[in-house]
Formats: sequence, structure tokens, C-alpha cells
Amino acid sequence: MSKGFRLAGRFEGVTTSPVRDILAVVNRGDVISFAGGIPDASLFELDDFRAAYDHVLARQGRRALQYAGTKGEPELLEQVAARMDRHLPTTPEQVQVTSGSQEGIFLVGQTLLDPGDVVLVEQPTYLAAVQAFTLAGARLVAVETDAHGMLPDALSAAIAAHHPKFVYLIPTFQNPTGRSMPAQRRRDVAEVLLRTGVPLLEDDPYGELRFEGEAAPPLAAVPGMSAQTVLLNSASKVMAPGVRIGWLRAEGPILRALEIAKQAVGLQSAVTDQLAVARYLATCDLDAHIAHVVEVYRERRNAMADGLVRRLPEGAAVTRPEGGMFLWVALGDGTDTAASLSSAVDAGVAYVPGWSFFAADPDRSTMRLSFVTNAPRVIEDGLDRLAGALDW
Amino acid sequence: MSKGFRLAGRFEGVTTSPVRDILAVVNRGDVISFAGGIPDASLFELDDFRAAYDHVLARQGRRALQYAGTKGEPELLEQVAARMDRHLPTTPEQVQVTSGSQEGIFLVGQTLLDPGDVVLVEQPTYLAAVQAFTLAGARLVAVETDAHGMLPDALSAAIAAHHPKFVYLIPTFQNPTGRSMPAQRRRDVAEVLLRTGVPLLEDDPYGELRFEGEAAPPLAAVPGMSAQTVLLNSASKVMAPGVRIGWLRAEGPILRALEIAKQAVGLQSAVTDQLAVARYLATCDLDAHIAHVVEVYRERRNAMADGLVRRLPEGAAVTRPEGGMFLWVALGDGTDTAASLSSAVDAGVAYVPGWSFFAADPDRSTMRLSFVTNAPRVIEDGLDRLAGALDW
Repeated sequence: MSKGFRLAGRFEGVTTSPVRDILAVVNRGDVISFAGGIPDASLFELDDFRAAYDHVLARQGRRALQYAGTKGEPELLEQVAARMDRHLPTTPEQVQVTSGSQEGIFLVGQTLLDPGDVVLVEQPTYLAAVQAFTLAGARLVAVETDAHGMLPDALSAAIAAHHPKFVYLIPTFQNPTGRSMPAQRRRDVAEVLLRTGVPLLEDDPYGELRFEGEAAPPLAAVPGMSAQTVLLNSASKVMAPGVRIGWLRAEGPILRALEIAKQAVGLQSAVTDQLAVARYLATCDLDAHIAHVVEVYRERRNAMADGLVRRLPEGAAVTRPEGGMFLWVALGDGTDTAASLSSAVDAGVAYVPGWSFFAADPDRSTMRLSFVTNAPRVIEDGLDRLAGALDW
Repeated sequence: MSKGFRLAGRFEGVTTSPVRDILAVVNRGDVISFAGGIPDASLFELDDFRAAYDHVLARQGRRALQYAGTKGEPELLEQVAARMDRHLPTTPEQVQVTSGSQEGIFLVGQTLLDPGDVVLVEQPTYLAAVQAFTLAGARLVAVETDAHGMLPDALSAAIAAHHPKFVYLIPTFQNPTGRSMPAQRRRDVAEVLLRTGVPLLEDDPYGELRFEGEAAPPLAAVPGMSAQTVLLNSASKVMAPGVRIGWLRAEGPILRALEIAKQAVGLQSAVTDQLAVARYLATCDLDAHIAHVVEVYRERRNAMADGLVRRLPEGAAVTRPEGGMFLWVALGDGTDTAASLSSAVDAGVAYVPGWSFFAADPDRSTMRLSFVTNAPRVIEDGLDRLAGALDW
């Protein structure tokens, strides 16, 4: 450690950072990356964003460059409340702007978690959420899942055994598996949470990227659940991640606590970006943009899922998500995808080894592949490299 | 609390948030506010920022809207390293971009503090830093200060008594007092820190806003101190706070730990704003801008300091800072400025009651006044209202 500095004890659990290493690999031009959850930048509505920023700087410039309130700019609160209101009655007062969903996850951890507290998570789950909860001193307990998400009986048993502070779920196009909870499973899981009174942190960054099947309203929309849920959304996957704008929906006093935590973390999200995203939402057709992105991503999902089915060795399994950004391969042969990553990168292709998404008992034969960053022909090329490197 | 939610125990210490209430008062049009540390928005270089954002969106748009690394954009790291290098040899590798200085303070707290750890602070000190350290579970211990800042002997005794994780100082134009540590005091304080090996978190958001006197290099520039210091700077006071861009300088492994903490908090600062600030720094004359701001703020400091000397009752004291944004009044008569705030606001003027800046044993007869937000004539008017409301 640097001179005189002694790290906090809880920091010892978070010394590795797979996402960082992933991003480093992505930046190597000769590697086809299926690793990061990186939207295709060629799909960004660049002209619309340029116009939105220019409008903001030209018409609201002094306000955009000044300090502002912690909750968020009124225009943005209104826009996102109206969008959430499609599935769940939402007022601007129930919204808090965050610097991406990641900050929302972190704020909930800071607000609710004492050292030693338990958070129940899916098995596997989003690794940067694990990182954020661990920084708050929490102990993560993985609950058994099947192809439809967390198992209600397992959840019920885990609540009885561990008295968790909250449950963290990504019910739609989950990261890393791509799986979604069907409507009945949502109701069954909500029933357990309502019966036990355990709050839910519902992370929904991908829900609008649906390629097929029926839209699934958030668990927060199950009657009774909204008061017991912090629901996270983000501009990152449907508009652009570089602006670092997300938002959360909650009810009652927890909102004020989250706002105080956000103030301590960084006073407020950048006013420039808040006003530009609000302007974009007010003047552009986000639904049309998403419809276009969905067309493109669906084709890529097909290319990757079909291409994997053709190439995978016997005994291996792959998910075929109805939306989102990721699919999940389980080789199921006792191999370790972490061990083979370096030969894959040498062969010019990258993925995320599955172990890092498990809070406990990792299946090391798994890997997460993003299908959104590359065009179908590049996906084919990358899968050829992958099959070669892993000797499929 | 909202249904099912139970707040973290450490959150009980941070339920009030004076800054938030200050900002609420500022937004009332009929109140002359000396409360917030709010730069004068009419001084922002609006055209330059508009051009910088437009350049970024036009030429680097897909990159600006995409995910990026946690450390910060290379152009920005280079620009701020070159600026810091004026006082202290600094490479881009030693810099971490933060979402304002506040995030830098928070990240240091997250990285170093275990519950119960002690942080030594000036008496009084910046309240939002207290908030950030308290969220990490720390215990704040105030060290005696005089007109030249923290007393070396008191610091030495406090280190022996409390074994702090680090010391938090704002050595130049301190918030809230406006005081600066002279060069000899800096050397004496650094000598104590070097001897005891206790790290320093040096917060320097105001240092470039100097109206008179000799520039004081940061404590980190005292030989031997740079390896033992995290030094915080920000665009907020010299360019614009709404972009939420700050940066820190550190050396060795602590940098990596701070980067991991930042990743957990929010992945990265907005790429849009990072690139726009880098473009502004590369193409505009920040020194000329600061020289202009300093002219304007000096006149306001004069108006407020002189105006207070004329109005204050006998026995009261006021600082006359050589720069920065704040001055500090101590009525010294046993009155409580928190109790008189509501009559002041009724009379159309706002300030921050001094008690909230004390980690312990507050002098409740104190108040912080910002002289930068309002023109001299408005300052005169506000001081008349203040004198009337407080019966001076």
C-alpha cells in the first residue's frame, strides 16, 4: 500500500475487478469482444444528442453549468416518471436521478446495509452489484434459480434462514444469463416478499430491449409490491451509457434517505447531462429508436444463439434470451472458462468467465457472451475463433 | 420508514442535511442568499462550454456517449496533470477523475474507513465531508485551530490519542472560515504527519481563487508529503459545478483502490462532461478566466468584509480571506445563529449557521457567509437586512 495508507477491512473482499479487465481487453482492436455489456455505438442517436446538448447550453446554459438539487432536474423527473407510469403509476416525486443504475445499486447498499447484513441474490447475478454491496459490508447469499429465475420456495427458506435486509433481482433479461421471470413466477416471488415483508431492489436496465414475447411489467407492479421496492432504470442500454444518467423509483421515507446518501456521494448528477437527456426525451422518439435497436439486436441474438448451437460440444447448454444483451453458456464438462480465457484472447475473442457472477459455489464451466456489440458476420468470426480456442 | 425497509445503523448520524436546506432557500427569488457556496453563474464561460460540448458531440460523439474506463479520459487526465504539475510534479497516471471533489472525499472514506475509525478534522470543517465520512462509519475528532489553521501540537497530541486513519484539511481559503495556512504552518503540520506516518486528505477546491498575497503550494508539495497525500481539485469553483468534474492526485497502490471504489459507486464519470472539460482546458484560457473571476470576487469580498466591519456589534469578529468564497462571523455573544435563521430568511437574507460545521463543541454564535454569489450592491442590501433581523 502507499505510504501510511491502510485500506478498510471490507475492501479486502473487493480487490479484484473483472469488469475493469474486460474493458481493457475490449480496447484491443484485434480482439472480437463478447465480454462487456457494451451497446453498439453506431446505433446511438448522435444528431439528436448533439442537438439536445446544444439546446441546453444555448437556452439553459447557466443553469446547466450551476449546482442544482440532489433529487434531479424537474424536467427529467417528469419525463422518466411518465415513462415508468406505463407499467406502474409513478409521480415525479417518487423518482430520484442517479448517475447510472450502478449508482442506484450503490446508494441502496449505503442506505440499508450494516456490516454483516445479508443480501439475497440470484445465482448467478450481476458482479458489480456484488461489489457495491460488499463495499457496504454485506454478506451475499445466493438463492437457487431455474430457467425461470429465483425459486419461490428457495427464497422463502433463505429469508427464514438469513433474515436479509433486501433481495436483489434482475427479473427481465437477467445479467448474466439473459433469462426472464414469467408472469406467474413474478407473482409467486412477490407473494413471498409480501408475506415476509422483505424489500426488493429490482434492477431493470434491459426490459425495454425485448425481441419477442409479451412485455413483463416489473415485480414492483404486482399489487402491494411498489411500496416495498426500489426499482432501477437507466438511459445506458436504451439511449447512451456515456451520459451516466439513470433513475430509481421508490415510495415514502426511503426516498429521502437515498437522496441524503446521494448527496454524500457526489451532491447531484451532472446537470448538463440531466437536462440533455430530458430534452432528448421531450423532443425525440425514444420508442422508435428502441424499435430500431431491437431489430438489430434480435438479428445478433439469432446469429449468436444459432451459431453456438451449431458449434457447442455435446452436453453444453446455451440460453436464448427474448431480449437484452447477454446469453449464457454452460459447458457442463468440468472445464474452467477462466483458465481458457487467455488462449481465447490469444485467438482474438473475449468473453466473461462465469465464475465471477456467482456469490458462492461457482459453476466454472460457464461464460457470459454479449451479442449486441458486433454485427452478425463478426459474431460468426468470433464464434469460429472461440470454437478453435476452446477445442469444441 | 417505507414498508419493510430498515435503514443502516450508521445512517442515523446523517439524517440532517444542511446543504440541501440551503439550496432550497437559495431558490426563493426574494431571498438574498449568502448561504450556499454557489459561484456566480453570470461569470461562466458559456460560449466556450457550448463550443466544447458541440466539438465533442460532433467529433467524438460515439465515444462520448459510450462506456469508458473508470480512471478517466486520457485527454482530461493529461490536462489536469499539467495543471497540478505547476505546484507538484504530477503525471496523468497519478490522476483519477471524480464526479466533483465531493466524490473524491467519499471515495477516500469508502477506501480507508472501517466503522469506528477516527478522522481528524479542522474545527470547524466542511460539513459534507463530515457526512461522507460518517456514512463510512467513521468517528470525527476535531483538532484545535487558530487563525492560521490546525495547530501542529494539537495535531500531534490528537494523533497520539486517537490513531486516526487520516487527517482531512482544507489548507487554502478554508470552508467555512476562509482562513489559509501560511507556508510555515504548512511545513509544521507536514512535519507532524511525516513523523507519525498519518496520511492526509487535502481538499483544495478554492486555491486558485486568490485575490492577494503569495500563492501557497499544497501541503502535498512539502518534500516527502506527496506519497502520503490524496490531493483533491475540482472544476466546480473555477469553471462550472454543473458538469460535476473533479480529480484527485495520489501515488502508488492507493490509486488502484480508489479506482475500484469509484467503479462500485458509478463505473465512471460522465464521458460527455469529461471530454468537454478536457476540450475547454485544451482550447480556452482558464488562467484568464480565473483572473477575471478573481477581480469580481475580490470586489465582493471587500464589500462584504468592509460592510460587516461597519455593522457588526462590538465583540464580534469576521475573517477577511485572501481568496475563495466564504468568510466567517463569530458573534461571540452566546447567541445561536441557528435560532435567528428563520427571522433572517423572513427579512430576506440567508446564511449558514456555524454549528453545522463543527464535529464537536460547536460555537453556535458563528455563521458562514458566501460573498461570491451576489454583486456588491446586493451584498450591501443583504447586510442591511441581516443587521436588521439580528438586531445589530
